[in-house]
Amino acid sequence: MCPEPESAPANGSVNRGGHHSGSPYQPVGDFLSNTNRFQIIESTLREGEQFANAFFDREAKIKIATALSDFGVEYIELTSPAASPQSREDCEAICKLGLKDAKLACDTGVDGVDVVIGTSKQLREHSHGKDMDYIKKTALEVIAYIKSRGVEVRFSSEDSFRSDLVDLLDLYRAVDRAGVNRVGVADTVGCATPRQVYDLVRTLRGVVGCDIETHFHNDTMCAVANAHAALEAGATHIDTSVLGIGERNGITPLGGLLARMIVGSHDYVTSRYKLHKLLALEDLVADHVQINIPFNNPVTGFAAFSHKAGIHAKAILNSPSTYEIIDPADFGMSRYVHFASRLTGWNAIKSRVEQLGLTMTDDQIKEVTQKIKALADIRPLAVDDADAIIRSYHLELQS
Amino acid sequence: MCPEPESAPANGSVNRGGHHSGSPYQPVGDFLSNTNRFQIIESTLREGEQFANAFFDREAKIKIATALSDFGVEYIELTSPAASPQSREDCEAICKLGLKDAKLACDTGVDGVDVVIGTSKQLREHSHGKDMDYIKKTALEVIAYIKSRGVEVRFSSEDSFRSDLVDLLDLYRAVDRAGVNRVGVADTVGCATPRQVYDLVRTLRGVVGCDIETHFHNDTMCAVANAHAALEAGATHIDTSVLGIGERNGITPLGGLLARMIVGSHDYVTSRYKLHKLLALEDLVADHVQINIPFNNPVTGFAAFSHKAGIHAKAILNSPSTYEIIDPADFGMSRYVHFASRLTGWNAIKSRVEQLGLTMTDDQIKEVTQKIKALADIRPLAVDDADAIIRSYHLELQS
Repeated sequence: MCPEPESAPANGSVNRGGHHSGSPYQPVGDFLSNTNRFQIIESTLREGEQFANAFFDREAKIKIATALSDFGVEYIELTSPAASPQSREDCEAICKLGLKDAKLACDTGVDGVDVVIGTSKQLREHSHGKDMDYIKKTALEVIAYIKSRGVEVRFSSEDSFRSDLVDLLDLYRAVDRAGVNRVGVADTVGCATPRQVYDLVRTLRGVVGCDIETHFHNDTMCAVANAHAALEAGATHIDTSVLGIGERNGITPLGGLLARMIVGSHDYVTSRYKLHKLLALEDLVADHVQINIPFNNPVTGFAAFSHKAGIHAKAILNSPSTYEIIDPADFGMSRYVHFASRLTGWNAIKSRVEQLGLTMTDDQIKEVTQKIKALADIRPLAVDDADAIIRSYHLELQS
Repeated sequence: MCPEPESAPANGSVNRGGHHSGSPYQPVGDFLSNTNRFQIIESTLREGEQFANAFFDREAKIKIATALSDFGVEYIELTSPAASPQSREDCEAICKLGLKDAKLACDTGVDGVDVVIGTSKQLREHSHGKDMDYIKKTALEVIAYIKSRGVEVRFSSEDSFRSDLVDLLDLYRAVDRAGVNRVGVADTVGCATPRQVYDLVRTLRGVVGCDIETHFHNDTMCAVANAHAALEAGATHIDTSVLGIGERNGITPLGGLLARMIVGSHDYVTSRYKLHKLLALEDLVADHVQINIPFNNPVTGFAAFSHKAGIHAKAILNSPSTYEIIDPADFGMSRYVHFASRLTGWNAIKSRVEQLGLTMTDDQIKEVTQKIKALADIRPLAVDDADAIIRSYHLELQS
């Protein structure tokens, strides 16, 4: 059932390959799926600037934009130049960089402009106070103006998942006919579940002909799963930020999305993005906003490829795929198998004995494992402690 | 579309209430859904002990078990007493606590026993080396023995999502007929997507009559979304650990799951768990395993209820539900609206002026907002800095 098929042909009839052929647990509707042809709209310099700790000066913005372009993201979104004079000047400075790999989305001579309006009852009442007729009329006027300037235009509703469905589809159809390049669906408050995302995007896919961008907040920890569900349903673009930084606890993180996507679309992800630069990119942004990379961050968190339990350690040493769905080497990372713990089996100790260049029989290794377990029961053991026990035992064997 | 309905009646025909009535985006199959009648199997003292940094001595185990029971989780899972003599003694010590609220799952005089076997091709080849016939025969023998001792018995496959579907269903049906209390589905490598989880659990729901427990690893950041999908499909129990600690980057976090579930099942979640004790519980575990609570942790991360952008701040001040799907007060937390930033609108400054007990007209507030924005463009502003500008401006107004 895992991983998903690499290909997503148009007829929905896929030869899955291997022993999972014909499994009913493959996602339905593969003919709509863009899980292996998505594009990333990287919003660290827009959404990420709304993160509590974020204050990017121009130098930081230029560093981050350059690193993102180098990493391979398809779009870099910038804070609106209307936010402040500084934002405008920063925007212009980044445009002048002439980044090779990524398009820019903001204003003042860049490649695209976003038009965003809140469509939920909550936002219409408490934020901008406009009704749906006004929203539609204004949107069409703005879109006509932007198109006359010859740049990409995206129309997005805010808080899409608490908006009236029929109003929403009516609005999207109108802006699609007006010729927007993309429509955007946004889970602004982080309430959506993957099944709701799949249903909404799949319906929208039947209503508009343009690209579909999606934006998911992470308040309920579903931002990566929702992005995946959106791609399964036919979305074309996913908004991300480095480490997910953004308003409140942020949006779909770039690294988390790629950890999810590489499982089913390995060749697409590895060919498109310089994955071995992910850690440096995350460090760059984390330093600027003064946060630590979470211990459990996908791929780059210190625990991501740590194995501890004895039975796990045995299988990992035999064949990493038994307990790893992601190959750390794809991201330039390495795995770490703990062996100094009460949970560690003798197989992990055997591996360590071999690493140390010592020779022991299996029975001897089992005996020294018991000694290590006995001490680990009493106090935490560092690798050095376990090594000392192994070496001492080995010395006894010689004499 | 969000939040989901609180009730999940048996006929699938729900009056959704409010203006979302009849929306096609409500999850299908509500008659199977357990999103508002799930139970938590808290595994910090089993799965969590496999976390790289975890070393729980008996005192720590007793503190954590007591706090979990007090919080309201339905089950506490402990490391197998067979792992080491210390594990056995700790297990017995926790049993003697006589915790009022939670059942214990392990051995030596507790309430239930788990039987786990890896069923994927990868695990059968590289871990235990047994075939499916052997697995089935052995499982039935072990189950008969445990049942003869009169305690709860759960049978779980490991790496369920890379196992052969037909073999898996055959095995589950056999153990269900043998009288197990629960069967368990485990995404041991963290590969599953929410749609795969929904499909597997829904199929399994039609094959077995017993409860269904689910266990999701978080390698691709889908562990919370997968737990939610499992409950929608009819699973009854979710494995969690505090902060998600476990093998590699862990499993569904207790706090993250409750953040997800409270959105659709507010009354169930608030009536069942002492949510205002979540932060203290997370701090307790984080201290013992020497980690920091991630900046973006749901509910308790420092950014979870921080609002920065001007338009957001305005709406949040008008009505929190515009940009918050979770009420921080439900968890004993509070929100924080930034105002010292280039992105801050004058509405946030107005709120701050009022908090400071000063009187200004809207035009005056707009003017001082410009001064604050101008300075924030040049260097990061602390709250004190912005307050100083407001007070200085207010003083000028008086003279």
